[in-house]
Parts: sequence; C-alpha cells; structure tokens
Amino acid sequence: MDKQYVIGIDIGGTNTVIGVVDARGSVLGSTSIKTQVCEKFEDYISEIYKAATALLESLDLTGKIHGIGVGAPNANHYTGNIENAANLRWKGILPLCELLSQKFGIPTSCTNDANAAAIGEMTYGAARGMKNFIMITLGTGVGSGIVANGQVLYGCDGYAGELGHVIVKENNGRKCGCGRSGCLECYCSATGVSRTAREFIETTDIPSILREIHVDEITSKHVYDAAIQGDELSKKIFEFTGEILGKAFANFVAFSAPEAIILFGGLANAGELLLAPVRKAMEENVLFVWKDKVKILASELKDADAAVLGASALGWEADK
Amino acid sequence: MDKQYVIGIDIGGTNTVIGVVDARGSVLGSTSIKTQVCEKFEDYISEIYKAATALLESLDLTGKIHGIGVGAPNANHYTGNIENAANLRWKGILPLCELLSQKFGIPTSCTNDANAAAIGEMTYGAARGMKNFIMITLGTGVGSGIVANGQVLYGCDGYAGELGHVIVKENNGRKCGCGRSGCLECYCSATGVSRTAREFIETTDIPSILREIHVDEITSKHVYDAAIQGDELSKKIFEFTGEILGKAFANFVAFSAPEAIILFGGLANAGELLLAPVRKAMEENVLFVWKDKVKILASELKDADAAVLGASALGWEADK
Repeated sequence: MDKQYVIGIDIGGTNTVIGVVDARGSVLGSTSIKTQVCEKFEDYISEIYKAATALLESLDLTGKIHGIGVGAPNANHYTGNIENAANLRWKGILPLCELLSQKFGIPTSCTNDANAAAIGEMTYGAARGMKNFIMITLGTGVGSGIVANGQVLYGCDGYAGELGHVIVKENNGRKCGCGRSGCLECYCSATGVSRTAREFIETTDIPSILREIHVDEITSKHVYDAAIQGDELSKKIFEFTGEILGKAFANFVAFSAPEAIILFGGLANAGELLLAPVRKAMEENVLFVWKDKVKILASELKDADAAVLGASALGWEADK
Repeated sequence: MDKQYVIGIDIGGTNTVIGVVDARGSVLGSTSIKTQVCEKFEDYISEIYKAATALLESLDLTGKIHGIGVGAPNANHYTGNIENAANLRWKGILPLCELLSQKFGIPTSCTNDANAAAIGEMTYGAARGMKNFIMITLGTGVGSGIVANGQVLYGCDGYAGELGHVIVKENNGRKCGCGRSGCLECYCSATGVSRTAREFIETTDIPSILREIHVDEITSKHVYDAAIQGDELSKKIFEFTGEILGKAFANFVAFSAPEAIILFGGLANAGELLLAPVRKAMEENVLFVWKDKVKILASELKDADAAVLGASALGWEADK
C-alpha cells in the first residue's frame, strides 16, 4: 500500500482550492486556481490537472494518490455530476468525477459543499466523535449536510438535506429563487439578512446607522458591524433571523434527533449575536424530550484548509 | 445453527400479539393477550412469557428461538425501555427488554411501533427493496419511522422520527397533547379529523349527515363513511386533512429525499379519499428537484400479522 495520500478539491464560486492530504488529515500542500477562468468545463478540468500535477511534483508524491475527493455546489454523490449549479458559469449536467478520474487516472468521488463541510466537521472539527448532527451553511443561500448513524444522508437520489428550502412561512412568505415562497433561505442566509434590513428600514422608524447606507446596498456584514456597535435595529435583525432559524431547528430535531446543529459560513461568524436567539427560539419550540439537549455550535473549521479537508475525506472511499 | 426462529411481539394499547416467525418471514403461529390486564408491569411480562411458552410448545419449537423483537409505544431501541407511554397503564420508564430477556433467557430488542411498522414494510410490504422511505402512521396520533440508507433512523437518543410533532401551524395552531400548539398530529390523526369535523360543523352552514351525530361523538370513521356516500362537508374534511399532510410531506422530502412516503394505520384506510389531496398538496409545494418523483403509497401490511412481522425482524439482530 504505497498510495497513502488523497487529493481534496474545494470548488467555490470564485476559487478552486486543491490540497494534498495524508491519512492523519494533515494538509501537506495546497494550491488554487480561479474557478470561472475557462469558458469550457473541460478546460477548467485541465487547469485543475495542471495545478495538481505541479503540486504533486513539488511534494514528490506523484503516483502516490489513493483517490480524489471533491466538494462542489450541487455536486451529486451518486452520479458524480454537478447538476444545474446556479453560481457556476457552466450550466446543466457536468460530468465532474468522470472527467477528473479520466484525466488523473485516479478514482474520484464528490459531494455538495454542505455535505463536504459536514464530513470535514465530523473528521476534524466540532462534530468529532458525533454520529448524528446537522451541518447548516449560512452563505448566500442556506445549505445543509445531515449526518445520521455516522453517515452523510444522501437519500434515494443524492439530494437529501435541502433544509434551506424547507418552507417556514406558509402565508405571504418571501419569494425564493427556487420559484416558491417562504423558504428558510429567504430569511436566514446572508441575502435574507439584507432583505430583512431593507424591510425593517422601510417599515419602522427605529433609528439606525444602517440608514446612512443606500437600502439596496446593505449587506449582512454591514448589519453585523452595526450590531456589534450596539445599533438597535441591527440587533433586532439578528434576533428576527435567529428566531426563524431556531424555530426551524426545533422541527429538524424532530426528524433526526441530532446531538448538535453546527453553523458554518459567513453569517455563522456573527457568533453569539446569531447563536443566542437561535438557541432561545429552538428551546422554546422544541418537543419536550429534546429540551436542553441539542447543542447549537459554531463550526471549528475556520481556516482555508477546512473545505479541502472535508472533500479529501471522500478520496479514501473513491472507487471509480 | 439450530435457532432458526424469532419471536415478534406487538404491544398495542389494547392487545399484545405474539408470533413465531421463521427466516423467510412466515408466521408459523401466533397468540394474543390483553395488554392492560395486569396492574404490575412485571406480571404483564410473565403473562407474555406464559402465552409464548405455550405457543412454542404447541409448535414444537422450544429452545429454537434466536431472538425476540418487540414493537411498543414509546419503546427506545437504544435503551430497551418503554419511556413514558401515554396509552399504557404503567407509567415512567419500563425495562422492557431487560425483563423479557431475563424471563426468556433469549436476546431481546425493541423499537417504537412506527419504526416496527417501517421495518415490516421494508421487509415484507410496500417498501420492499427501498433503502430510503418514510413510514407515517395515522392513528390516534401521528407517528413516523424514517429509513435512510436501508437503516431505521434512530438519532443520537433513539427518538428520531417524531414527525407527528413537527409544528405545521405557526400561529393560532391547535393545542397539542405535547404541551405545544400546531403539531401535525393535531390535524392529521384520527383525533385531528374529529376536531376538524367539529370545527367545520360549528363554523360553516354546509349541510351534512354528520350534523345528525352529537358533535363531540363524531369519529374519523363517521367522516369516512359519510364521505364515501358523497357528503360534501366530509369530503372537505379529508381535503383539509390531506392538504396539511401533503404540505408537511413536501418539507419532509427536503430532509431525507425518500423514494416513497407510506401511510399506515386507521386513517390510511380511507385510501384515495385522503391520498389524492395529500399528493396534490405535496406536488404543489415540493422543491422542483422532487416534482413527480416521490410516491405516496398506502401500506401493504393490512393483516393482523403485519406488526408482529415488523417487530420480529428485530429479533434476528438482538444480542443481549
């Protein structure tokens, strides 16, 4: 057994990070390329190959890779394809694993970014030792990776864990990018926080430093910065966001009885400003058997290696 | 290997059914006792032992039992206890598996009735060959058993799959026995259907044969009987029930991406009267990736053996 390393690839909307990882989870080296640089997906795969090959040579590990694991938006673990990813320039079905395994001659496995984060968290982060937890990624949208019985829950089609698209407002819900209304991600993503800010500014008279910014340009970062300075309206925005998220979590708990729900991504960096109202709303709404039992945690995977580590773990199991 | 049989025990609020099952899933013989006959739980266990021993002798299978599997209200697969079951006379924590395995000298395993139904359905019913499905039991309450990746989802504490207690009405929801408001089971159980009937009779002028019955005595059976005779109000009650259930299912699908949702229990016998509005509401509310993909099925386990078969399947894995 001389192939004791794996490659982990994290495909983001902007950057693609490639890392070489050993069996103990140490990133021996990494490199990155711009995701959107090539017009054709095949050329993008070639760019990944070039960068990875150079990395392997520099580490003197050519020929020693057991498998490749990839985390990417809308990547389907079962099919190995990226399927209709909204934030990538290539549309439709992209045969990600097939092209990579052909190019490298190495077995490749993939999953979506939220599941990769869950695997990373379970292997190296806040979920170490947990067999049942839910990973919630709060970015532009809301993603999720559900781990039950120590395994990522993929469902019958690889799409399980679309918790950002659970409908939380039955009536007069906000319009969602998915074509429906009232989805969790319309409220609890970074974009949702901006929408809430706009709504609160337009429908209340509460003074706020946010009013100095053009209402269409307010980001969740603005709201966070204002809130930690004590801005009343901004704190209310986090309370509103946390309440919706916590109520949704109370229902998620009734599904899979997780030991913890772990928050990851930009908005999760708001820390207790968000976590405190989430916990409060969850505890007020959860079924009695889970009162004071389910932990709400922030991810421990803060550094740039996190996503690569999560993806790389898939490389050990890749078999085609 | 001469122990090629298992005992399946189905503990219901009224009857306890005990069956002997072979490796091919044939019930070789069964017997039953009244559940509530003994004041002390220990004495009830002795009654089960007596009945089972007589059954085994009559089948000439004494000493040939590999394990015992039990399905019971609020039975926890991890602890082996029945925990605070509302519809049994013995309160608190009941060491079900410990007492049975001591009494019989045979390894015993248990799970709650909805999970037992899911196992039965997967092994012998409508879910044969499925690795991902959700079993919904519509009885006095609403129970659920979730199968993901071919395994019953138990969560970190054995309580996973309390989908009857997902909150579906955020505002002004009906009061639930769990102490909260707006739970799915307040609307979609047999009791929920009676409540809807009362509500519709008191708040509308729609003529109905249900108005001939005292409003507090209307059961879901009355509503069903009236609906199949074409009673307008009764059909509206099933549409209302089905719509709430179907909307809830749309959210459940986003969690575990099941191949099918299977309905079991008294209310499920209403067939298309309930299933048609459930399907309609689910399809109207489900995320696009699952449109026209998730089957809504009635259980195929109609006969009295069903619950015993489901429970018995646990007997093969029992190890203490």
